[in-house]
Amino acid sequence: MAATLLSLDNDVFRAFATYATVVVVKTMLMSGITAVTRFKNKAFINPEDAASMKDKDGKPLKPFTHQDVERVRRCHLNDLENVIPFVLIGLLYVTTNPSLSTALLHFRIFAAARILHTFAYLIPLPQPSRAMLFMAGLLATLSMAYNVFSKGLL
Amino acid sequence: MAATLLSLDNDVFRAFATYATVVVVKTMLMSGITAVTRFKNKAFINPEDAASMKDKDGKPLKPFTHQDVERVRRCHLNDLENVIPFVLIGLLYVTTNPSLSTALLHFRIFAAARILHTFAYLIPLPQPSRAMLFMAGLLATLSMAYNVFSKGLL
Amino acid sequence: MAATLLSLDNDVFRAFATYATVVVVKTMLMSGITAVTRFKNKAFINPEDAASMKDKDGKPLKPFTHQDVERVRRCHLNDLENVIPFVLIGLLYVTTNPSLSTALLHFRIFAAARILHTFAYLIPLPQPSRAMLFMAGLLATLSMAYNVFSKGLL
Repeated sequence: MAATLLSLDNDVFRAFATYATVVVVKTMLMSGITAVTRFKNKAFINPEDAASMKDKDGKPLKPFTHQDVERVRRCHLNDLENVIPFVLIGLLYVTTNPSLSTALLHFRIFAAARILHTFAYLIPLPQPSRAMLFMAGLLATLSMAYNVFSKGLL
Repeated sequence: MAATLLSLDNDVFRAFATYATVVVVKTMLMSGITAVTRFKNKAFINPEDAASMKDKDGKPLKPFTHQDVERVRRCHLNDLENVIPFVLIGLLYVTTNPSLSTALLHFRIFAAARILHTFAYLIPLPQPSRAMLFMAGLLATLSMAYNVFSKGLL
Repeated sequence: MAATLLSLDNDVFRAFATYATVVVVKTMLMSGITAVTRFKNKAFINPEDAASMKDKDGKPLKPFTHQDVERVRRCHLNDLENVIPFVLIGLLYVTTNPSLSTALLHFRIFAAARILHTFAYLIPLPQPSRAMLFMAGLLATLSMAYNVFSKGLL
């Protein structure tokens, strides 16, 4: 059996590890943005969280949902739906031994599209900016999936 | 240290890469089904998405949730909850060097169960068809997890 | 190219495989807790699920959401948002060849924090216990991400 391609000695893997870490950490950051948005709007969903805060009359808060919080939550879920497939398919893609330039093209398009997608979702920017950035990320992942599949065994 | 098992030279890994790609792409497809269902029912959740569409009287749409869209969303989330653990545990399982026939049995049961689960959820088929397909996928993943765990180090 | 670090011959990988399996299986367990909580409260969200059950007057149930079910669902989603990044970043972290003791420290803090987080969420324990356990898990993953990033290639 051959030496591994899943090693930091392989430039493609090292690039993958870096971009995968960037987009996963970006996804985790959404938890922080959710928390900040909850505090800003005093919009807590768990009764025990709301009860530990006071409103302006000094009374305990009641749990409720706020549209700004829900927007951040949707953006976070959209990240989970797209970033995790990218990392899983990307790892398999590295084992197909792609050229560094082709691999970097996929990783960079995906990472740039998802970072801009977050801004497009949260600002929000007028459509179809968000939809197009979503598609760019999706196509980068599907292109890697096609490469894995073409080497596959069913 | 040994040669890697996480290589396309290893038939078990090549099979894993194929089935993992199939189920991850199937999960990503749910985004497309969500979009189609939103357009069909004019049910957009983001105000900026709704406002860019017109109702039959030519007025901008208001955001609302539609039960058909919510069904697709639940199916997508159910995929995330099951397909991603399969891929993560499956990758670790490959490193336990299982026989190709045993590994294929796990991968094929899981992939078939999740593809049929999607039809059972979206048509929908009467229960307990969806519950049983869910269980089949879960048990395939848990069986692989047991194999990893039995080789483990705490 | 070097021998692989992603092998059960490598103690760090063997430890990773074990802890990753523990936290992923714990996450999958939330599906079971959701199902039990739905039956206990007769709170089914899919109309075909509700219709197959009877209320105390012998009439088919109507779908509705129950706060206990929603709490378990939020806990499950919180797991997906944190456990999956841990496993993805953790796998990349293993390829940086950390010492076994440092790696075990990360894996054990994360696993303990997430298991306790589940109890804190479901009982529920008074805040800030849940928030602090959430932060402990997040910091363990971010510390591994920093290690990967410092070896990276952009």
